[in-house]
Amino acid sequence: MPQALVRLREHLATIKSLNDTAALLGWDQRTYMPPGGAQSRGEQLATLNRLAHEMLTSPKTGELLAAINVDDLPPDSDDARLVAVVSLDYARAQKLPSEFVARFARIRPPANQAWQQARANNDWDAFAPHLQTVLELSREQAELLGYSEHIYDALLDQYERGLTTAQMTAVFDELKAGTVPLVKAIAAQNSAERDACLHGDYPEERQEQFGKYVTERFGYDWSRGRQDRTVHPFCTNFGRNDVRITTRFNPDWLSPALFGTLHETGHALYEQGIKPELSRTPLERGASLGIHESQSRLWENLVGRSHAFWSFFYPKLQETFPARLGGVDLDTFYRAVNTVHPSFIRVEADEVTYNLHILLRFELEMALLTGDLQVADLPAAWNEKMDAYLGVTPPTNTLGLLQDVHWSNGTLGYFPTYTLGNVLSVQFFDQALKEHPQIIDEMGQGQFATLLGWLQSNIYQHGRKFLPNELVRRVTGRPIDTSPYLRYLREKFGALYNLEGAA
Amino acid sequence: MPQALVRLREHLATIKSLNDTAALLGWDQRTYMPPGGAQSRGEQLATLNRLAHEMLTSPKTGELLAAINVDDLPPDSDDARLVAVVSLDYARAQKLPSEFVARFARIRPPANQAWQQARANNDWDAFAPHLQTVLELSREQAELLGYSEHIYDALLDQYERGLTTAQMTAVFDELKAGTVPLVKAIAAQNSAERDACLHGDYPEERQEQFGKYVTERFGYDWSRGRQDRTVHPFCTNFGRNDVRITTRFNPDWLSPALFGTLHETGHALYEQGIKPELSRTPLERGASLGIHESQSRLWENLVGRSHAFWSFFYPKLQETFPARLGGVDLDTFYRAVNTVHPSFIRVEADEVTYNLHILLRFELEMALLTGDLQVADLPAAWNEKMDAYLGVTPPTNTLGLLQDVHWSNGTLGYFPTYTLGNVLSVQFFDQALKEHPQIIDEMGQGQFATLLGWLQSNIYQHGRKFLPNELVRRVTGRPIDTSPYLRYLREKFGALYNLEGAA
Repeated sequence: MPQALVRLREHLATIKSLNDTAALLGWDQRTYMPPGGAQSRGEQLATLNRLAHEMLTSPKTGELLAAINVDDLPPDSDDARLVAVVSLDYARAQKLPSEFVARFARIRPPANQAWQQARANNDWDAFAPHLQTVLELSREQAELLGYSEHIYDALLDQYERGLTTAQMTAVFDELKAGTVPLVKAIAAQNSAERDACLHGDYPEERQEQFGKYVTERFGYDWSRGRQDRTVHPFCTNFGRNDVRITTRFNPDWLSPALFGTLHETGHALYEQGIKPELSRTPLERGASLGIHESQSRLWENLVGRSHAFWSFFYPKLQETFPARLGGVDLDTFYRAVNTVHPSFIRVEADEVTYNLHILLRFELEMALLTGDLQVADLPAAWNEKMDAYLGVTPPTNTLGLLQDVHWSNGTLGYFPTYTLGNVLSVQFFDQALKEHPQIIDEMGQGQFATLLGWLQSNIYQHGRKFLPNELVRRVTGRPIDTSPYLRYLREKFGALYNLEGAA
Repeated sequence: MPQALVRLREHLATIKSLNDTAALLGWDQRTYMPPGGAQSRGEQLATLNRLAHEMLTSPKTGELLAAINVDDLPPDSDDARLVAVVSLDYARAQKLPSEFVARFARIRPPANQAWQQARANNDWDAFAPHLQTVLELSREQAELLGYSEHIYDALLDQYERGLTTAQMTAVFDELKAGTVPLVKAIAAQNSAERDACLHGDYPEERQEQFGKYVTERFGYDWSRGRQDRTVHPFCTNFGRNDVRITTRFNPDWLSPALFGTLHETGHALYEQGIKPELSRTPLERGASLGIHESQSRLWENLVGRSHAFWSFFYPKLQETFPARLGGVDLDTFYRAVNTVHPSFIRVEADEVTYNLHILLRFELEMALLTGDLQVADLPAAWNEKMDAYLGVTPPTNTLGLLQDVHWSNGTLGYFPTYTLGNVLSVQFFDQALKEHPQIIDEMGQGQFATLLGWLQSNIYQHGRKFLPNELVRRVTGRPIDTSPYLRYLREKFGALYNLEGAA
């Protein structure tokens, strides 16, 4: 290995340790930190983030990168790709002056605090000025980062490198055309009592025990992970050998912890599956937010809401909760966990309506950035779109445009990655089935080795080695494609709701 | 504030954040980290320790220190003392080349691992070569650090700055003279069943609840702390507003968790009581290991094993464990928690015999360092001294010289701080009683505000501002003095064991 490469890897390992440690500070903050620790935690995080940023943007990084001749390395080798990815990271980080990074970082905690209060008090006016500030800084950020076609490209690229607004607009056009009629057809059917069996007495410890049973069968390695309780579930990691998930148990409602656990486990399987050779490098991480979400959605929905899955696990679930589920048959339960119901809240949305929540946010973010929409007009615009896409109008702003944390964190451009994840979850799963049709039968036997093995060798092991678009093409032979996803929705929910014209 | 001082404080705040974060990595490692995380945790810790060391020893520190004229600052001001302490830290850190620090750091994990196995297998020969390496590196370390009288001074100074081997030898001479006869007089009495009531059915949750009740009354601020479970109890902190303790519950034995919790809470009260003005500086920490131990022992023993304390808390304890303690009266219980019994294991030793365990280690460490004792002869020397001081001979090396972790961690010179803590706990407590005689009565009412307030204003608030010797003199008007401690032992245990000549 060339000397410059050895030194680059050492340099990057130090940065990685700082970033992993910052992630632990974040995990602790959301799980166990006593309230008194908040202020110094902010300072600790700021210090580690600053040092990591300084090291990445230091002349040393540039010199080491310049000293390596990538043409000497095999083009798909880990080292060639490491140099390529770090070169992009370095170039992007260089574009944001420390002064700007610090300025943007400073307005986030007050914006977030204002949002929390505004949401609690249904007080849009209290949050609007903060959103205005975030918007102006996001515009400044986009100009600093640069873009060729659309200002939104610069922001999107931070979460989904190489993905363009034009690509994402095409995806949403297809989803809108395919989904809105489906939602209307389903909404015509009364489904109020359809998911009644998911509510009732579900003791917390047994929910936890069942979740562990399922995720262990998925292949989550509990010796390299753990599960804790948090208000907002998440997955985080400090290297591939310490990948943790969290959840929230509701003793009266089965769904949140059950499907939340499967979702976070999907993220965790990805991180645990990155090959050891990428450890201590910035490639030891998922390829992008969208690719990551494709894995959480795949395990949550394609596996965890499938009939095959429940044909194996439902008897076990009935044993775990005999009082509540002893008299509920498999098909009733399967229908319950696949209830479609247009609602106000994104995180509670079903598979059919979910992307319409994202579409709305995508369109509003773009309009805000281009100046076609003013912050003051946002509440009305939100409610109009909710009515147009989902046929419902939130009675309060708390149930409307104040529901999500993202804007208060300054992360405009993030939402589309959720939809990308949904679309890709089916595109990847379809490809896995093409190569290994037995996967469905194995799911019916509680076996996931073929599926997990395929995902590991095609996606997980590579970490952040390939750009998202490139990875999709390598794995499925095609660019991002909504047709498998739309076909999946039509077939699954057509059958579940006996819709005319369903396959 | 002079510009150089402002910049020094910023520089030190960054180092403090790194050290606090390293402490969180350590806390997580011992509480929740999954086994798979061990290797990358080692790398994360090494990175943070290295960066903190590099920053402290960087030319920047020296330049900023040189740019500040201490004579311009009031001599006892926080800033003057900050500059003084950091100058000493800087000078000491400069003496140890990075190459040496890295070399010493590398041999510790294998030495520790070898010790764990040697202890489990009673296999001294497997650990001896590692101790030989630790010994040689400790000698090298002492020579690098420098000393004027005794090689041991250099090592001791790392844990107890300014304390000399001569001072510590005098302390031990007095303790030996005062304690060995006391141990013999007590050992003549049969005390086998004296602490029977501490064993039995003590459900874990109730132990936890009782411990919280007591420590809250002590003044431990639970909004700035928490308690978790670990194999080896400890206290750690990430600034004064996040001070955590851990414990281990034994459902069949009340003592370990109860007194362990009071002990760790003593450490925690100290850290929580440091004044906010010292936050984000290296003074936001206890003055030394010995001063720290004086506080854990004060709350554990002077308070937690006193008759006054139990006269208030015992009825509450009986309510908590009615089946086990309903029929045990206060005096029986008080005698039980003050049982003296010469034994093999230091951490289980009572107040009377504890320091003899330390004396033995102090003498052996000195003999090893000077070359008067060879590593190969250590087992025999250990057992001889156990017999001479405590009248017992360990049947195995696991119960003898393999019991403690310290040597495998490379921390020769650490043990004396335990004894210093014991001695100072009484010297400080006596002074508090002199100034506020009502403290005993208040303890009998479950009130600790006067005691805690006195400790805060005399010791806790100052953090690491004063050298240990200086602090003792400021608070008690005298140097380190064993007479209050020996008088306390004679009076308390003379009465408990009806010894002739007891006060």
